[in-house]
Amino acid sequence: MNQGIRKLTHPHPFTTESGFTFPHLDIAYKTWGRPNAAGDNAVLICHALTGHAAADEWFPGLFGPDGILNPERQFIICSNVLGSCYGSTGPGSIDPRTGAPYGAAFPIVTIRDMVAVQRILLDALGVTGIELALGGSMGGMQVLEWAVMDTRVRAMYLMATTAAHSAWAIGINEAQRQAIYADPHWNGGDIRPGHPPRAGLSAARQMAMLTYRSAPAFERRFGRHMQGSATDWFQVQSYLNYQGHKLVDRMDALAYVRLTQAMDSHDLARGRGTLEQVLAAIRIPTLVLGIRSDLLYPTTEQIHLATHLGAATYAELDSDEGHDAFLIEFPKMAAAWRNFQH
Amino acid sequence: MNQGIRKLTHPHPFTTESGFTFPHLDIAYKTWGRPNAAGDNAVLICHALTGHAAADEWFPGLFGPDGILNPERQFIICSNVLGSCYGSTGPGSIDPRTGAPYGAAFPIVTIRDMVAVQRILLDALGVTGIELALGGSMGGMQVLEWAVMDTRVRAMYLMATTAAHSAWAIGINEAQRQAIYADPHWNGGDIRPGHPPRAGLSAARQMAMLTYRSAPAFERRFGRHMQGSATDWFQVQSYLNYQGHKLVDRMDALAYVRLTQAMDSHDLARGRGTLEQVLAAIRIPTLVLGIRSDLLYPTTEQIHLATHLGAATYAELDSDEGHDAFLIEFPKMAAAWRNFQH
Repeated sequence: MNQGIRKLTHPHPFTTESGFTFPHLDIAYKTWGRPNAAGDNAVLICHALTGHAAADEWFPGLFGPDGILNPERQFIICSNVLGSCYGSTGPGSIDPRTGAPYGAAFPIVTIRDMVAVQRILLDALGVTGIELALGGSMGGMQVLEWAVMDTRVRAMYLMATTAAHSAWAIGINEAQRQAIYADPHWNGGDIRPGHPPRAGLSAARQMAMLTYRSAPAFERRFGRHMQGSATDWFQVQSYLNYQGHKLVDRMDALAYVRLTQAMDSHDLARGRGTLEQVLAAIRIPTLVLGIRSDLLYPTTEQIHLATHLGAATYAELDSDEGHDAFLIEFPKMAAAWRNFQH
Repeated sequence: MNQGIRKLTHPHPFTTESGFTFPHLDIAYKTWGRPNAAGDNAVLICHALTGHAAADEWFPGLFGPDGILNPERQFIICSNVLGSCYGSTGPGSIDPRTGAPYGAAFPIVTIRDMVAVQRILLDALGVTGIELALGGSMGGMQVLEWAVMDTRVRAMYLMATTAAHSAWAIGINEAQRQAIYADPHWNGGDIRPGHPPRAGLSAARQMAMLTYRSAPAFERRFGRHMQGSATDWFQVQSYLNYQGHKLVDRMDALAYVRLTQAMDSHDLARGRGTLEQVLAAIRIPTLVLGIRSDLLYPTTEQIHLATHLGAATYAELDSDEGHDAFLIEFPKMAAAWRNFQH
């Protein structure tokens, strides 16, 4: 995952919406292609909850000849969000004022904070125009905030996302956080080095995986096939436990908690008027992709977006893979974008 | 909940499908009405995961003038299932061989074990015929097993249930169990008296509540309304935490784990041939009710049941309350049954 990742150190203070000031910021990012002379050929990719700057690893099908991204012509940028654990400033980063990791003192950040940090990066890279900003899930939330907070974006591709985190999605995040809190190694967020809340984070991830997939997809893949071990009777148990432990190996539990809180804070209209007004004022050509089997952000939410955005088209991805289809169904996602352009 | 609950002590050994022998059994039950001379006017109600014998408390709308149950004419019976914590033998019961609670030594039981225990009760009550067996969710699983295991059932009303626990439903149970296991008070199932895994069971219940409800129902009820406390920003968080703690106060964590394992074991066809053969051999008039918004047991599963059962009709409850609609939408449930009878 570190292949080609660079780091920008922003040497100035940065203050979050909640009023917390970081003395300086690290921003981990990756780029493909080169800026043109005008600096207006940027493509901005925003990642989801457990993502990172190496977008070619989790959006592989959007790169390359059959994709919609073209490093020959575009200057493609993806950065790790504020609050994450893949190189940008997050709970595991050293607070220069104490010499120790921020840990539980790391503030709750918002999607708007993430975008404010990304703007610093794009300024530093000399970007004057963004021909396309795209992302799914939490990535789409950032793209929407970009459209409100910055005038550089000229088109958006929003996938499986929402204008404001629903009670349902907040509830799903909350139940996951409660599973993490139930693990004594959580310790109120003061996680001791080398002693992460493995069991709690794994349980949270297992819960999340269910909301990312669908009943038909699980049935096709696992059915009632037996695993036969003492703890895992069924293959689906074994799969979920594997997925849980795999995340524990690559993600900081405090970052996971803070990023889910950032998602819960997401409300494009907060402090700006009614949601319909805010959406109508966004007149950038936009493709809104819904996934028919998405349980986390049902298609009603993308239809609402497309209906109220100033210049949006709705397309529905006919997949039973659930929310995660935006990380799976690349040919269909690319085709939807090409249809939209023609 | 103890109003009118009686207890049958079965003084003989009972051996589970897994080969564990209980020296004797307690069966907590409640009845309404009286047996007729022939003993064939029984109505059997089977309860779901966290239910108990006092069916009038959780099926209130099915009793009384607008309901489908009539104690004037019927002998209505409901008993607490084996493995639960409301009076029947379960993990909290005393093992007479040790003088201590069974605890973690309590075996994994199956839906068939539950039904075998209920048959002992109905034998003791002199029941020769069951004019109707009904239940939702895990209750419906028991009703289906009754139809295979006993010839006394003359009609079934199956609500929001399934012929075999799907990979999806097993996964949902597994993630919940993992949240319980993450709590140190779980202690491998050896729960110390007075120190239940409160946080883990609460997280599990919160996860479960999400699968029992639906996104539209949550949005209508909670939206993004703020709670404003330091730990619960949103009302939906406060609601879920309340629901979690409420279950902890009334349910033993080990019973919760064992009953979810029993649900996972549910497969009407296990050891009996193909599912379609087993269902076709059941020729009892049956109403299968699906709930349009049920995420846990999607309507495809009830349609499958109704299609393959020997004499079944499918009805769909148009509710956005999710799986729990079978504990809410009593007038619609009663109307569906009356339609079926006419």
